[in-house]
Amino acid sequence: MATEIATLKNPSFILQSRDNVTYEDRPIPELRSPYDVIVKPRWTGICGSDVHYWVEGRIGHFVVESPMVLGHESAGIVFKVGDKVKNLKVGDQVAMEPGVPCRRCVRCREGKYNLCPDMAFAATPPYDGTLARYYTLPEDFCYKLPEGMSLEEGALIEPTAVAVHITKQAGIKPGDSVVVFGAGPVGLLCCAVAKAYGAKKIVTVDINDERLKFALDFAATTSFKSARVSAEENAKTLIKDCELGPGADVIIDASGAEPCIQTAIHALRMGGTYVQGGMGKPEITFPIMAMCTKELNVKGSFRYGPGDYQTAVDLVSTKRISVKELVTGKVKFEDAENAFKDVKAGKGIKILIEGPPE
Amino acid sequence: MATEIATLKNPSFILQSRDNVTYEDRPIPELRSPYDVIVKPRWTGICGSDVHYWVEGRIGHFVVESPMVLGHESAGIVFKVGDKVKNLKVGDQVAMEPGVPCRRCVRCREGKYNLCPDMAFAATPPYDGTLARYYTLPEDFCYKLPEGMSLEEGALIEPTAVAVHITKQAGIKPGDSVVVFGAGPVGLLCCAVAKAYGAKKIVTVDINDERLKFALDFAATTSFKSARVSAEENAKTLIKDCELGPGADVIIDASGAEPCIQTAIHALRMGGTYVQGGMGKPEITFPIMAMCTKELNVKGSFRYGPGDYQTAVDLVSTKRISVKELVTGKVKFEDAENAFKDVKAGKGIKILIEGPPE
Amino acid sequence: MATEIATLKNPSFILQSRDNVTYEDRPIPELRSPYDVIVKPRWTGICGSDVHYWVEGRIGHFVVESPMVLGHESAGIVFKVGDKVKNLKVGDQVAMEPGVPCRRCVRCREGKYNLCPDMAFAATPPYDGTLARYYTLPEDFCYKLPEGMSLEEGALIEPTAVAVHITKQAGIKPGDSVVVFGAGPVGLLCCAVAKAYGAKKIVTVDINDERLKFALDFAATTSFKSARVSAEENAKTLIKDCELGPGADVIIDASGAEPCIQTAIHALRMGGTYVQGGMGKPEITFPIMAMCTKELNVKGSFRYGPGDYQTAVDLVSTKRISVKELVTGKVKFEDAENAFKDVKAGKGIKILIEGPPE
Amino acid sequence: MATEIATLKNPSFILQSRDNVTYEDRPIPELRSPYDVIVKPRWTGICGSDVHYWVEGRIGHFVVESPMVLGHESAGIVFKVGDKVKNLKVGDQVAMEPGVPCRRCVRCREGKYNLCPDMAFAATPPYDGTLARYYTLPEDFCYKLPEGMSLEEGALIEPTAVAVHITKQAGIKPGDSVVVFGAGPVGLLCCAVAKAYGAKKIVTVDINDERLKFALDFAATTSFKSARVSAEENAKTLIKDCELGPGADVIIDASGAEPCIQTAIHALRMGGTYVQGGMGKPEITFPIMAMCTKELNVKGSFRYGPGDYQTAVDLVSTKRISVKELVTGKVKFEDAENAFKDVKAGKGIKILIEGPPE
Repeated sequence: MATEIATLKNPSFILQSRDNVTYEDRPIPELRSPYDVIVKPRWTGICGSDVHYWVEGRIGHFVVESPMVLGHESAGIVFKVGDKVKNLKVGDQVAMEPGVPCRRCVRCREGKYNLCPDMAFAATPPYDGTLARYYTLPEDFCYKLPEGMSLEEGALIEPTAVAVHITKQAGIKPGDSVVVFGAGPVGLLCCAVAKAYGAKKIVTVDINDERLKFALDFAATTSFKSARVSAEENAKTLIKDCELGPGADVIIDASGAEPCIQTAIHALRMGGTYVQGGMGKPEITFPIMAMCTKELNVKGSFRYGPGDYQTAVDLVSTKRISVKELVTGKVKFEDAENAFKDVKAGKGIKILIEGPPE
Repeated sequence: MATEIATLKNPSFILQSRDNVTYEDRPIPELRSPYDVIVKPRWTGICGSDVHYWVEGRIGHFVVESPMVLGHESAGIVFKVGDKVKNLKVGDQVAMEPGVPCRRCVRCREGKYNLCPDMAFAATPPYDGTLARYYTLPEDFCYKLPEGMSLEEGALIEPTAVAVHITKQAGIKPGDSVVVFGAGPVGLLCCAVAKAYGAKKIVTVDINDERLKFALDFAATTSFKSARVSAEENAKTLIKDCELGPGADVIIDASGAEPCIQTAIHALRMGGTYVQGGMGKPEITFPIMAMCTKELNVKGSFRYGPGDYQTAVDLVSTKRISVKELVTGKVKFEDAENAFKDVKAGKGIKILIEGPPE
Repeated sequence: MATEIATLKNPSFILQSRDNVTYEDRPIPELRSPYDVIVKPRWTGICGSDVHYWVEGRIGHFVVESPMVLGHESAGIVFKVGDKVKNLKVGDQVAMEPGVPCRRCVRCREGKYNLCPDMAFAATPPYDGTLARYYTLPEDFCYKLPEGMSLEEGALIEPTAVAVHITKQAGIKPGDSVVVFGAGPVGLLCCAVAKAYGAKKIVTVDINDERLKFALDFAATTSFKSARVSAEENAKTLIKDCELGPGADVIIDASGAEPCIQTAIHALRMGGTYVQGGMGKPEITFPIMAMCTKELNVKGSFRYGPGDYQTAVDLVSTKRISVKELVTGKVKFEDAENAFKDVKAGKGIKILIEGPPE
Repeated sequence: MATEIATLKNPSFILQSRDNVTYEDRPIPELRSPYDVIVKPRWTGICGSDVHYWVEGRIGHFVVESPMVLGHESAGIVFKVGDKVKNLKVGDQVAMEPGVPCRRCVRCREGKYNLCPDMAFAATPPYDGTLARYYTLPEDFCYKLPEGMSLEEGALIEPTAVAVHITKQAGIKPGDSVVVFGAGPVGLLCCAVAKAYGAKKIVTVDINDERLKFALDFAATTSFKSARVSAEENAKTLIKDCELGPGADVIIDASGAEPCIQTAIHALRMGGTYVQGGMGKPEITFPIMAMCTKELNVKGSFRYGPGDYQTAVDLVSTKRISVKELVTGKVKFEDAENAFKDVKAGKGIKILIEGPPE
């Protein structure tokens, strides 16, 4: 099959419809503007959302209505550059930021392009993703990898940027105590980025012992295993066991689970900050009175905005955080479907898919 | 009865226990420190929380376990000053900020004294309130009324400071569209303060036509009557009818009602801000996913902090907002219980109780 | 001459070189992108910088090296719209924001497009200005004038946006005491905008009695005439005469004059904020030690950024500020040179030039 | 002499008047409030300001008019605790924050107690310092040293807190490029703290090769030796040699030298931040136009405020920064004068004086 794929012009891994993926040859894309570059993606991580589209055919009101190339966590090599490209040349290795905003709306202009209503995001319907031989995007959404940084690390910049954005939303600063619910890829990276931002105590919370152990080795300073008790009780034990004094300064939820969110609100100190990073049920039972009387700051975090990708590259390239440990599997392009199956089954932390053979 | 009360040394209106109020003579208080003053409260507004203690004997974990003087929305006349008092003299008219923090904890030191765990707040157990002839508090919690400002207006500074704090939490700035749920005293004052902060469109939302009309006359630019439909549907109609474009910039809940909170979250624009000002059920069903993907800022607002009382005095004294219209009744000290009954019955907007006769 | 101009295709008022202006026919401009509109400017205010280019042929490192159309404070009528224009149609009246940034650099992406190094700004070499029959700019740099707002007011939006940006940089909030040095157009508008942002006390400072009187009538609450004494002495008198207590919360310089800047630093309270709005000598003697030990915030303010133009339109259309009083003269297009002469001679406050006759 | 001192009740190192120090027995101090503790200082660093008072008898308007105990950079052992002290007990080792504010003024209440006009600061006239056997201060200005942290490190917390405050004023965040002028104790600590806050590039600037080398070993990533050229030229070379692209994100001056300040303003990027940490001449020639058109944020930094001491303790105790290397000399209490002479002569980086013998 590898041979076969190698012969295609622009082999692409395509979600035809719910639960139905194929390889297909797509036209080689063009530069859409003189500010664009064409990149050949070399490594692409699989994200929960990719799998969700594959399994369900939709996420919320984003519905896969026509065939769509999958993949959006990629790094690759610049193949072609437009006339007005200033800082990149053919052959450069880059991390690829997968969402391109309109640049013209109020949100874009005020510096919050992740909130642009006209965002074109890779592998979010109707926009094609990066699991293909070629991918076009504007120069300023490509981040040159500094010397010494690998393309595999480059593919990990996407979830790292997610964690950077969450951390910025959380306003973490030196000395803070931070609790992170959920020890999946994003939760783990939140622990690491919180550490890089100077957090003094970083508590990882999960229900899985193995994940907690990994998180401790990776970046957390303390771990806490959630129990099947009331949220208030869970919060009390968390505060006591992890010596959080009047409560945590910052809590990040990277689990999306209702009991985690409730526990988090009860475990924060007066005036503390909560950031919702994980996605779960659209509605939950929420302790609004505690939120109000403790005067909490509760924030959503959606993808990443200006500076986040660059910060992620900087953190990795200056060794403030390490991402290699998260890669628990690497597969060939032609084995992409198996990789999706493994992620669905919860195997490993982060699986990377190689770019198509030539 | 007035004659009788006049003969007492320090007549005080006391909640003995749930549903049981009396008048009692209390010792004339002392200065507790050379920085203190003793004030004779002249007018005191009744707040929902006063009534709640009267009816229920508790609010959350604050339980009335021994007799407690009621009242905390007061203005009065300085009767005695300590040796180190700098800016006040006997006879000055002052608005009285009713909560005195420890000044030493982390929250106090960082400028968020409303979050002080050792706050001594008038008429919050176990601390006595202001419905008495004398009340002691530190000089810096008294705000001299500028010329032309009445003591009745001074008593209204407390709920105005609540609205100022909510507005600051909301970060309202010129040009913003603001929706305020609930057209009771705090909701009305939020409309007025939002206007003073430059909000362009101020939508008052309630289920009572009369209140909506009052709010429009008072400060709102538009009104919206909530319907018994789903929160998402209500939000859509609100946005459409009130021409809120991509959603409101800021929404304040001064109702505490679950359907309002849910509607608010759905009616905010990407990146908008929600402030919980009203108190209702401790837990509600909350659209957490919408909060996350719209990257909202959701904040509690608790009482008032540094600068809020002064800002409230400034807004009233410079006529940026008017508070007189809110006073729908004034009663003698000896009729305090009747006033409480009226508030419980939902009569009028704000009832003031005069200080004890002499 | 009007007849003659009327016959031209695109009559334009052009600075040929220092001190040398002419009328010339320029080609009718094209839409540069489908997001663009072509506007026919109807009124254009003259700014100090326009006159500076005319008199000196340069401002700092911006040098007029080839003929350049003058003018950048304009409002006009939409003449043509590109295919992707969403919110404007032919005939709409708009205020025209004269600087278009690259939208791609770090500064643009983070929401500070006024700091874009590739800004194309009208009547700043080498970019043509708005004193012509046609002017092309992107839809999102046109701001539809609400009903009831005139095109003359629309032309005043530019200096109002300058004042809005200064005020935002200053972080003015209700209750603040604000001192504004200089009572020219920008200083006057800073007083008005500061008032709209809730400033309690607004002191206008100038050396000209007539200007001070105008400022008091227009927006200031107090005036102060600078004396020829040391900056420290001047500051002391200012604080005492204007009852600024421990010093002003915010001081804006809209004069560019060295003694004003020095006085300002000495007249600020501990932790106060200073904003440099006016331009004067490139280097001055500056009280750095006072700045340091009072822990002041000293900021530059350069043009206007995201939201400023819209805020300016909102403030005018909702009558929070009034700008009509500033218009002290209106001239025909063919009298533009005379208008420049009047501005150079310091006559009036703001002179508007009408668009070319047809 | 040590024996003699040991026999005194409260041996104290006293500045009698300019250039005249003695040892004297002072009464053992009392607790001034039940919230106070008495500490026996064990190590005290010498600061430039101590030496300045010794040499000049004054700093600005602070004049030594009566004998004053010197010293304010201390750590010691709790000797006695007041009745209301909650978190400290006799024998605890603590870093001592030497300035106690009034807790009641507007600045204190808003969380900026370093700007309190009634600050009582150790060894700033008329307040005695810490070079004595006993020193009284409120519990909340003592910071318990975590296990593993020495009293010598505790004495270094004071200059570290200065650097923390400067860094917070500068708003340094991961990925920033930071230039620090001056490689004395505060400049060095600014480099270290900037690194702990995630700065990517930290340029140390000085005119002394040895200091530059020390700074590189200690915390900086790059060094730059200032040349005797114009500030603009120096800035250009700095940007080029240190690869600062469009200019530095943040520049801190810890030198107080006029050419450094000028160079800094020219070396910042559009929208960059400058913090004045060092003290020099009261007035300098300042490039105000560059400040304005680049829209810089220029800030003073004065001592330290809420949270800074705790952050400093956290940074040292969690090994984010190391301070031991800065201690280049330790002397006995009875050799304090010699230590002052060494600091005056510019010997070493930080000299510590031991507490009095017993």
